[in-house]
Amino acid sequence: MAKTAGIMVIGNEILSGKVIDTNSPYLCQELRTLGVDVRRIVVVPDDIAVIAHDVLLYTQTFDYVFTTGGVGPTHDDVTIEAIAHGLQRRLVVHPEMEALLQRHWAERPPAVRQKMATVPEGAQLLMEPDLPIPVLYVANVYIFPGIPQLFRRKFDSIKERFRDVPYHVRLVYVRARESDFAHVLDQVVQEFPDLLLGSYPEVGNPDYRVKLTLESKELPYLEHAYTRLLGLLPAETIYQVV
Amino acid sequence: MAKTAGIMVIGNEILSGKVIDTNSPYLCQELRTLGVDVRRIVVVPDDIAVIAHDVLLYTQTFDYVFTTGGVGPTHDDVTIEAIAHGLQRRLVVHPEMEALLQRHWAERPPAVRQKMATVPEGAQLLMEPDLPIPVLYVANVYIFPGIPQLFRRKFDSIKERFRDVPYHVRLVYVRARESDFAHVLDQVVQEFPDLLLGSYPEVGNPDYRVKLTLESKELPYLEHAYTRLLGLLPAETIYQVV
Repeated sequence: MAKTAGIMVIGNEILSGKVIDTNSPYLCQELRTLGVDVRRIVVVPDDIAVIAHDVLLYTQTFDYVFTTGGVGPTHDDVTIEAIAHGLQRRLVVHPEMEALLQRHWAERPPAVRQKMATVPEGAQLLMEPDLPIPVLYVANVYIFPGIPQLFRRKFDSIKERFRDVPYHVRLVYVRARESDFAHVLDQVVQEFPDLLLGSYPEVGNPDYRVKLTLESKELPYLEHAYTRLLGLLPAETIYQVV
Repeated sequence: MAKTAGIMVIGNEILSGKVIDTNSPYLCQELRTLGVDVRRIVVVPDDIAVIAHDVLLYTQTFDYVFTTGGVGPTHDDVTIEAIAHGLQRRLVVHPEMEALLQRHWAERPPAVRQKMATVPEGAQLLMEPDLPIPVLYVANVYIFPGIPQLFRRKFDSIKERFRDVPYHVRLVYVRARESDFAHVLDQVVQEFPDLLLGSYPEVGNPDYRVKLTLESKELPYLEHAYTRLLGLLPAETIYQVV
């Protein structure tokens, strides 16, 4: 079984359409490549009760929880407090984080350093050589900033710890209309119930109408399903396979 | 009070990183412009139980629910069935939809037309002159396809029905580091608790460090808060106001 993940994107700016979330697409692609199965993404406002409720649910439901956003020094940065609340942990000053902030954020106001050093009790730091400020996690919740450049740098620095058995993928590009071979897909998923089979029409593509994706962590199973699908689709409708 | 909305993006292809969801950002921007308050976005797999659970919750929580994805003719298109399940309605053939599909999709397999004409009992059609296939809704749930071109065309054709009192917006671009004026923002939100105040640092911008957004549906309230903020921020730190 693949490890599962839930992603929480935190920030009013996403919901109000001011900022487009690029962190969750990046995380989905990276985690898929690592072999992790993302089961849910949620975008929630900077609201302590809402975040707290969801983080508790997610921590119980998924192997990993990733949060992005709401970890800065301003009034609307409530993620840390909300996670503490949701996981029923006290907020405490983390001495190591405090020391790091003292070193790297020496010129910032003390109240800001104090806020940034305050974490849910039991939270731990993932120190990486290239990160002045480490990644914070508590239980199975990994806490990231929302600013895409910082988010990616932090995630990339720790991503190898999530590596798992990879997914194997086959792609089939089909010229026919999806409606005309829907019954073929039905048959394949009936014969191969563990196959992950996706069917994605593309509007306006001159070469093909539908992209089919076949995936499994078991390569022989994938190849059997792939062979079966190719045998059922009329040969003249297949534009390309990868 | 603004009308609220929840958005459900349905599809394994988003969670597995194959496709980037552009529908929810579009919807967030459009709904904000219309004056609707989007409170939550969720991305869920093509899983009947998961979708059914969430759609029931959302229909009870928000004024409007928008779903995108999972409405085509293939095995992984389970949105309609899941919505029926979640709202505890039977699946029935909609005679008007059946007639429209007979006219516009005459060349497609009967099983496909049958599937596309099957809807939750009580579902209604929003007929628009420019749409051959109308928008389907049931209770407060508006059901859209996932393909971005079709999604936008359908949403745009019906969006005026959601128009509400607009949000008024002021933008302030600040040269200073967010940490250095976080206390000013705290003070403004204490004095203007109904102000929607966002603070968004930008990495690598040569002109300013932070974009502040001030919003309210009450223009005088917004202007008072805006004036107060400008009075508290050191004048030399303000790069631009809009």
